[in-house]
Amino acid sequence: MSDLRGLKLAVLAPIAWPTPPRGYGPWEQVAYNIAEGMHARGLDVTLFATGNSHFSGTVSSVVPVGINEDPALNGDVFGALHTGELFRRAGEFDLIHNNFDWKPLTYALATTTPPVLTTIHGFSSPQILAAYYASAWRSFYCSISNADRDPGLDYIATTYNGIDVSQFTFAERAGDYLVFLGRFHPEKGAHLAIEIARRAGVRLKMAAIPQDEAYFNEMVAPHIDGDRVQFLGEVEREARNDLLGNALALVHMTTRPERFGLTMVEAMACGTPVLGANMGSVPELVVNRVTGFVCDNVEEAVARVPELAVLDRRACRRHVEDTFSVTCMIDRYLDAYRIAVDRRLPVAPSTERLRWRSTDWWERPMAYTDIPPKPASLHFND
Amino acid sequence: MSDLRGLKLAVLAPIAWPTPPRGYGPWEQVAYNIAEGMHARGLDVTLFATGNSHFSGTVSSVVPVGINEDPALNGDVFGALHTGELFRRAGEFDLIHNNFDWKPLTYALATTTPPVLTTIHGFSSPQILAAYYASAWRSFYCSISNADRDPGLDYIATTYNGIDVSQFTFAERAGDYLVFLGRFHPEKGAHLAIEIARRAGVRLKMAAIPQDEAYFNEMVAPHIDGDRVQFLGEVEREARNDLLGNALALVHMTTRPERFGLTMVEAMACGTPVLGANMGSVPELVVNRVTGFVCDNVEEAVARVPELAVLDRRACRRHVEDTFSVTCMIDRYLDAYRIAVDRRLPVAPSTERLRWRSTDWWERPMAYTDIPPKPASLHFND
Repeated sequence: MSDLRGLKLAVLAPIAWPTPPRGYGPWEQVAYNIAEGMHARGLDVTLFATGNSHFSGTVSSVVPVGINEDPALNGDVFGALHTGELFRRAGEFDLIHNNFDWKPLTYALATTTPPVLTTIHGFSSPQILAAYYASAWRSFYCSISNADRDPGLDYIATTYNGIDVSQFTFAERAGDYLVFLGRFHPEKGAHLAIEIARRAGVRLKMAAIPQDEAYFNEMVAPHIDGDRVQFLGEVEREARNDLLGNALALVHMTTRPERFGLTMVEAMACGTPVLGANMGSVPELVVNRVTGFVCDNVEEAVARVPELAVLDRRACRRHVEDTFSVTCMIDRYLDAYRIAVDRRLPVAPSTERLRWRSTDWWERPMAYTDIPPKPASLHFND
Repeated sequence: MSDLRGLKLAVLAPIAWPTPPRGYGPWEQVAYNIAEGMHARGLDVTLFATGNSHFSGTVSSVVPVGINEDPALNGDVFGALHTGELFRRAGEFDLIHNNFDWKPLTYALATTTPPVLTTIHGFSSPQILAAYYASAWRSFYCSISNADRDPGLDYIATTYNGIDVSQFTFAERAGDYLVFLGRFHPEKGAHLAIEIARRAGVRLKMAAIPQDEAYFNEMVAPHIDGDRVQFLGEVEREARNDLLGNALALVHMTTRPERFGLTMVEAMACGTPVLGANMGSVPELVVNRVTGFVCDNVEEAVARVPELAVLDRRACRRHVEDTFSVTCMIDRYLDAYRIAVDRRLPVAPSTERLRWRSTDWWERPMAYTDIPPKPASLHFND
């Protein structure tokens, strides 16, 4: 099956936010881009998302709005009903594309049709690997970078997240400040961005949401002076575009490996190069010495600052158009869909893969973020 | 199908504890009693439970020990895999008996076979009703008392939890103290037991686990003097038997309706009557003026204390043997199984039932216990 036009595709989106999200909601945004992209290529797409989602194809909903938009909604209950509804209707589809993490896989275990393809958008904790392993005979997996692959899992494709490049304004001239974008969490390295800007004698503008407040208060806030180090809060799309486009570079000195890193792609789309740490997906996303610098440490990053202005900003934009556009992403997914539809079920994992599963998860190179603590109190169910 | 011998039955137990549990674990205990009872009646039973469970039939496990026995185990992941494994094998069974709350119902939505019967052991929050409602076309429901029925749901039976009466020693002579058993939580009314004992001039012995520590420290602890009010901590089976059997009565003055109330049955099995509040399941479990007194308020309870010693303790024991034995429970479930196997799918809910679903859950008479708080922070999934 090489032409997938008319293929009945179910796209399962998360329900934390509407699809597409109004503000934050990266997984919902990707699910939206996939659904629209596949619809445009002639697939018959049903998007399973919140009731306040919108999409050119058909939306199917069991929950009226995003779980995070209404405190009265129980995410556990509606997540299960949302997933249950998709699998109740599974027989209507030729392929299910799961963007809703690991739990839907445990539902897929009950049947062998239709084929299921799961994009692993991230690993919230090593313990969810047990679910990915148990479902490896049932779902094809896609990673969002080569770096993000778990050695115990087989993947049929790396499907980089794609952006709508037209939404980002290209800025021809390099600005005179560094920019930090995202969220304040030690692993995102805002404190290193501050150090680099200070040592290089360049201003820093930060636009981010404070996720880790203790970290923010201790490592970030004391340096904010409204001049050399500016904090702009969370910025909306328009302001974000300006902020990125007018910068000298995006500083992305992570301290734990990044899985993908959408802000790097957004910066490059505006023509702004990336000063990034040599770990995780950074060397894949940034063409070293062309669209930025991949640095081994803070010293190297400081030394690279004077070279940033000489990089070709058009090359940054072109790199995104050629590799990280929605069109590229859809092409990659179409290739993956063809494999899934042809093979129907994944091949059994190799002995080599299986060996990895007994390796302590905590010793794996990639980071796990936001691990929920085990409740201290017992559960009383009487 | 009136003879169910040979019926291939899957019993889904919770996995917080092994089945049967070593200590606390009421749902696991009931699941065990059901599995053993059905095995003894000639059904072909597979018990889905933790790997350290034991049972005369077949045990199927994906998690080695109880989630609450090993802090490294993630209950969400293993709960989903445990449920997923049952539904992966669903085609092997003639009937699934779900004792693992509402979430397995969302898995059952994907198929129409085999029939599913769910015992609703409790409602942890009104929000889970959405899952019971959505699954009403797919699963038959049993309640554990008539009082515990949600008006928006149809039930095919009330299946009182049954105990193995032989495990409880009958004590012919009434003791001289009142007893409080269970857990310290305002809804269990330990503070009322203290007040009744004090006003009636009788000693009180309390054996319970402190669930609500603030309540315990404020309303219970100040009254413990080791003489008039004694606190024995959590007691093991043997000591529990003695404590119950040698008491004048079990005080069960709940402040919110009780769904079932196993301790009342255990007390009566030892020959000890119940001094209980007139709400929830109490009037169903206790034969007023025969196996205890069903009281409208503390005043009435105090007034009844002198009459407790004249109640026929044999009648208490007999009442349990006739109504709350495992044998009775199994008989009730066999009747329910016959209905489920014959009808296969429940009939659509009546208009009258459906009307209830739009009524505010919080105004319903029954209580919801241990409602988990909505997390204050947003979920970051990038």
